[in-house]
Amino acid sequence: MTASTVQVYPVIWNEDRVLLIDQNRLPTEYVLVEISRYEDMAVAIRTMIVRGAPAIGVAAAYGLYLGARDVQTQERDEFFAQLESIAQQLRQTRPTAVNLFWAISRMMRTAYESLGTVDEIKEILLNTAKRINAEDLQTCQAIGTHGLEALPQTPEKLTILTHCNAGALATAGYGTSLSVVRTAWHSGRLKRVYADETRPRLQGAKLTAWECVQEGIPVTLITDSMAAHCMKLGLIDAVIVGADRIASNGDTANKIGTYSLAIAAKAHNLPFFVAAPLSTVDFKLSDGSQIPIEERDPAEIYKIGETVICAAGTEFYNPAFDVTPAELITAILTEYGAVKPQELKDFQAKQIS
Amino acid sequence: MTASTVQVYPVIWNEDRVLLIDQNRLPTEYVLVEISRYEDMAVAIRTMIVRGAPAIGVAAAYGLYLGARDVQTQERDEFFAQLESIAQQLRQTRPTAVNLFWAISRMMRTAYESLGTVDEIKEILLNTAKRINAEDLQTCQAIGTHGLEALPQTPEKLTILTHCNAGALATAGYGTSLSVVRTAWHSGRLKRVYADETRPRLQGAKLTAWECVQEGIPVTLITDSMAAHCMKLGLIDAVIVGADRIASNGDTANKIGTYSLAIAAKAHNLPFFVAAPLSTVDFKLSDGSQIPIEERDPAEIYKIGETVICAAGTEFYNPAFDVTPAELITAILTEYGAVKPQELKDFQAKQIS
Repeated sequence: MTASTVQVYPVIWNEDRVLLIDQNRLPTEYVLVEISRYEDMAVAIRTMIVRGAPAIGVAAAYGLYLGARDVQTQERDEFFAQLESIAQQLRQTRPTAVNLFWAISRMMRTAYESLGTVDEIKEILLNTAKRINAEDLQTCQAIGTHGLEALPQTPEKLTILTHCNAGALATAGYGTSLSVVRTAWHSGRLKRVYADETRPRLQGAKLTAWECVQEGIPVTLITDSMAAHCMKLGLIDAVIVGADRIASNGDTANKIGTYSLAIAAKAHNLPFFVAAPLSTVDFKLSDGSQIPIEERDPAEIYKIGETVICAAGTEFYNPAFDVTPAELITAILTEYGAVKPQELKDFQAKQIS
Repeated sequence: MTASTVQVYPVIWNEDRVLLIDQNRLPTEYVLVEISRYEDMAVAIRTMIVRGAPAIGVAAAYGLYLGARDVQTQERDEFFAQLESIAQQLRQTRPTAVNLFWAISRMMRTAYESLGTVDEIKEILLNTAKRINAEDLQTCQAIGTHGLEALPQTPEKLTILTHCNAGALATAGYGTSLSVVRTAWHSGRLKRVYADETRPRLQGAKLTAWECVQEGIPVTLITDSMAAHCMKLGLIDAVIVGADRIASNGDTANKIGTYSLAIAAKAHNLPFFVAAPLSTVDFKLSDGSQIPIEERDPAEIYKIGETVICAAGTEFYNPAFDVTPAELITAILTEYGAVKPQELKDFQAKQIS
C-alpha cells in the first residue's frame, strides 16, 4: 500500500458539490455522501456524517457557499439578509466546535468586504471555502512537523495514547493529533498507538483504529477506562489529543474523557499534548468555564448498534465534551510550533480572523 | 413495589441444585439457570453467568458440593483425590477473585477435618456451602450499616458514584458497595447514584442500573470517561466501589477503570471507598503488584452485541482488572467497620480462614 492510497480526505469539493465520507458508517462501510444544498450540510454536521472541529469548519464553509449559490436575487442587501439566515442555521448545528463559527465568520467577512456583484460574491465565497480547505491541510502538516519536535527524546520509539479521532477524518486531511502520530511514524519515532475507544460514539474504535490500519501503523484499542492502568504499567510515553475549543488561557474543550486522561497523565508524570490549529483558540474567552458544553441524545449511551444496554427507568447524562484545565497541558501543538498554554495569548495576532 | 419483591439473590440453593440468575441476559431477560453438575458451575463462573467476587465464592462452594455428591466411592482417600481434582478445576475459572480460592479452601478444610464417612463428609460440604451463603448475606448487610456511618456528613443527601456492579448480583444478596447505597437510601441519606457503564462488559449499565431501578433508587448512567467531568461539576459526593482482591497493605484489585476513578477522586478531594468483606483480603500478598490480573477475550472490546466497532487489523488489550494503590483509598468498608488501608493487618485474626 503506497502513501497515496491511504490519504483520507473527509470533505472534498467535486465540481459543483461536496463529497463527505460518511463517518457514521465507518469502519464497516466506506461511503461518500453527495451534498448539494446547505440544508443537507447542516444535517450532515448535526448527525456527525462529518465531525471533528477543523473538518466541521471546512464543511460549514462549503455549506455556506452552497446556500449562497441558491439565493435567487441580484440585490446585495437581500442577498446578505438570506446569507445571514443560512449562516445562522449552520452555526446552530454544533455548539462547541469553535472552528465552525470561525469558518463562517471568515466567509461572511470576505463576502461583506467584496464590492462586486452578487455573482462575484458567490465566486469569492467558493474560493474562500477552497482556501480554508487547503490551509487546513497545510496547517495539519505543520502541526505534525512541530509536534514531532515536541515529543519526548526518549525512548527512541514512542508509544502514544490518543482519544477520540483527531485524525485525517477530523480535518481537511492528515489530522491534528494523528498528524503528529503520522509524522512520528514516518520518521521512525513511533512504536505503537494506543487508541481509547471513546464512548459513547466510539470514534476511537471506529475511526482512529481504521485510520491507523489504513496506514499500517500498529494500533492497540483499549476501553477508555484502561488508559490509567496502561500508564501505570509503563506502556505509554505521551498522550496527544485534539481540541474543539481552546480558551485564551489554554483551558481546552475536547471529547468527553479527555479531562480524565489529563488527570491520569499528570499522576504518572507523562506529557499531555493538545494538537490543534490556532483557529481552535477562542481568544474571546478568558477561560474554559465560558465554553458551552453540548449535551447529546441519551440514546448514544443506552443503545449500541441494536443492543439496549440498560433497564427502562435508568436516567442519563451525556455531555459530548469536557474541559481540561491549562495546568494539566504540557503544550499545545499548533502550526506555529509547540506553545505553552500561558504563552497562547502571544499568538493572538497570528490568528487569521 | 415492596422491599421483598425487589430482593435479588443471584445464587440460590433449591432442594438438590443451584439456581443462578443468568447475568449475561440481564437487563433484557430475567432467566434462572439450573446447575446440577460441578462442570456446569465451572462454565457458569468462567462465562460470567455468575460474577462478582463474593457471589463467585458462594457459587464455587455449591459447585464443589455438587462435584462431591457425584463422586462414586466410599473410600476416603479416593474421595479426596477426586475432590481435589474438582476443586482445582473450579479454582481455574477466574484467576483474580480471591473469594473463589477462599471459599474452596474453607470447604476443603472442613471436609478434611471431618472423621466421618464419605456420605457424612458430603453432607458437611453442603452445610458449609449454605453457611458461606448465609454468612455472605449477613456480611453484606453489616457492610451497609458500617458504610453508612463512614459516609460524609454533608450534604444531607449524597450523590454516590459507583463502578461495575458490586451489588446484590455480585454477592449472596444486598451487595457490597450497593449495600452501602441501599442502606443510605433507606436511611434518607441518598439523593442519587451515578453508575459508570463499565466497558467492556457493561456491568454498570446492565446490572447496577437494573438493581437500582428494581428498588426505585434514582440512577444516572454515564460512560466511564464522564466520571471525572461529573466530579469537576460538583455532581459527586463520594465514590464507592467493590473489590476482587485486596493485598494486606490495602492495594485493591477491582474492575478495570477503578484505578482511573481513584486518581480522579483524589484530584477532586472526594472520598474513595472500597466496600468488601474481609474475605476479599489476601493476607498472603504484601502489596498489589502480586495480584494476578486476568486478561479476557478481545471480543469483549471489538464487538458489542452484534455490532463490530473497529476495523480488521486492530490489536487489543483487555485486562479485566486494575490495582488501585492503598494511598488513594479513604477506607475499606468491611463487615467490621470502616478500616483504613494501613490498619487492615490488625484484622487478619478476624478472617475466617
